[in-house]
Amino acid sequence: MTAEIDWIAADWGTTNLRLWAMSGRDVIERRSSDQGMGVLGPDEFAAVLEQATTGWPAVPVIASGMVGSRQGWIEAPYAAVPCPATPQMVAVPDDPGGRPVRIICGIRQDNPADVMRGEETQIAGLLSLSPDFDGIVCLPGTHTKWVRVSAKEICNFKSLMTGELFALIAGQSVLRHSLSGQECDQDAFLGAVSDAMARPERGYGGLFQLRAEALLTGLDPAVARGRLSGTLIGWEMAAAKPWWLGCEVTIIGAPALSSLYEQALKAQGVPAALMSVEDATLAGLYAAYQQFKSS
Amino acid sequence: MTAEIDWIAADWGTTNLRLWAMSGRDVIERRSSDQGMGVLGPDEFAAVLEQATTGWPAVPVIASGMVGSRQGWIEAPYAAVPCPATPQMVAVPDDPGGRPVRIICGIRQDNPADVMRGEETQIAGLLSLSPDFDGIVCLPGTHTKWVRVSAKEICNFKSLMTGELFALIAGQSVLRHSLSGQECDQDAFLGAVSDAMARPERGYGGLFQLRAEALLTGLDPAVARGRLSGTLIGWEMAAAKPWWLGCEVTIIGAPALSSLYEQALKAQGVPAALMSVEDATLAGLYAAYQQFKSS
Repeated sequence: MTAEIDWIAADWGTTNLRLWAMSGRDVIERRSSDQGMGVLGPDEFAAVLEQATTGWPAVPVIASGMVGSRQGWIEAPYAAVPCPATPQMVAVPDDPGGRPVRIICGIRQDNPADVMRGEETQIAGLLSLSPDFDGIVCLPGTHTKWVRVSAKEICNFKSLMTGELFALIAGQSVLRHSLSGQECDQDAFLGAVSDAMARPERGYGGLFQLRAEALLTGLDPAVARGRLSGTLIGWEMAAAKPWWLGCEVTIIGAPALSSLYEQALKAQGVPAALMSVEDATLAGLYAAYQQFKSS
Repeated sequence: MTAEIDWIAADWGTTNLRLWAMSGRDVIERRSSDQGMGVLGPDEFAAVLEQATTGWPAVPVIASGMVGSRQGWIEAPYAAVPCPATPQMVAVPDDPGGRPVRIICGIRQDNPADVMRGEETQIAGLLSLSPDFDGIVCLPGTHTKWVRVSAKEICNFKSLMTGELFALIAGQSVLRHSLSGQECDQDAFLGAVSDAMARPERGYGGLFQLRAEALLTGLDPAVARGRLSGTLIGWEMAAAKPWWLGCEVTIIGAPALSSLYEQALKAQGVPAALMSVEDATLAGLYAAYQQFKSS
């Protein structure tokens, strides 16, 4: 007996579209493509969704991410903090492809200015799986978020560009020649985190040195990668200190990246719990689907 | 009466080739192209030079820059600091196109590891124009250099990636949407320099905020550009503090960028002299040409 697909979960970001055919909480089938918001005009989303879900039934679609930005399918306006962690949604008009489509609203903070789109869904998922969670959520990624959650509300948050900066520097700067491969030396990483937290300006002065050491003494690329990654995450740890100091932290992100943040926090005596980003996303989209059904 | 072209000066970097037909110290004609080292294979340099100097006589060519790197025309090995500021050169074999071609050697520092190619020529030029110079030379650019010069020697130096990081962040990160245009608000710049020097980690935390303020409150792009530029230059000023504190500084660079460094130094009570990068380059290449003639 095959479980029946009764809704579709969508994580539609700037660069990727991830889709799950769902039966209640269970994943029946996964699909993904590079048809992210960034490469689509406003008129193209309906056809892309139609094609990407070929063979799946005409059931409701719950989407989160940049698909709801001004440059996306339709703008799902930001909710302002403090706000309930329960997702808010807007409807795409006319049920494209015969499917009701709902897009989850992002969240904004006015002072200091900050925005998120997509992470609010993972936080809703965390609260759905751990209803009593109270503390800090760290969501490492292109624009890492540190989010304070209390009494089922998102209180405030801070974004840092660590992931995007690492990708730009490692992939496109002169350091790209010195960082080949994907390995990251752990000792070099932790040393650089500690140095960058203690003396951020020294880490800045050490960036070009990675290139020079590679040229002059054949620096191991895994050590160079560890030092670059540790420098950026060390700066982030210093900037986000009020968020993690003396707090309980749950990290929601890709496994390798989450592990780096976990190690950096552990070195500061802060234990962190890890949650799978897929689990959190699907739990958040499911919570939104439940809300949609009961509305 | 037209002055006779008796040598050719070449600044051959990664992205550009700049050529001057010279009569002694006087420029007869300028040419430039995007045939930098980065787009050329080792076998292509002779033909590119031949074509770029069409119509000019078969006189000696003195070149500096990345043309002398391992990926360039021929490798001009690094001289190690401390070393005389007088240029060292290697000859390209077989006088291509009937012209003797000499390439100026870069300079390396073993501890901490660092390298330069091109800036050594500008420093030679500065010393040729101001033989008694003793102090710090700041050469802002893709990889800014701070160089200590004393008793006509290059003592030691430090490279920072400020120019390359600014170009990557302003041109390719999510902040590109918030930094349109070329204007840079001076108050925002100086405020960010001061903040980044005092608390570097706050500057790091403030990067994504530029994007969020642009989205939520329509931040002026000139202010955003000033804050980004000031944050990076502020980090550099903090990292390079041992180089400028209590020192005489001469800045050799493009006018707009040199002016930003001059303002940042002035805010710290450090007066700086400015020298045109073309004047310094040509004076350095001329000193090398004199050496070539007398050899």
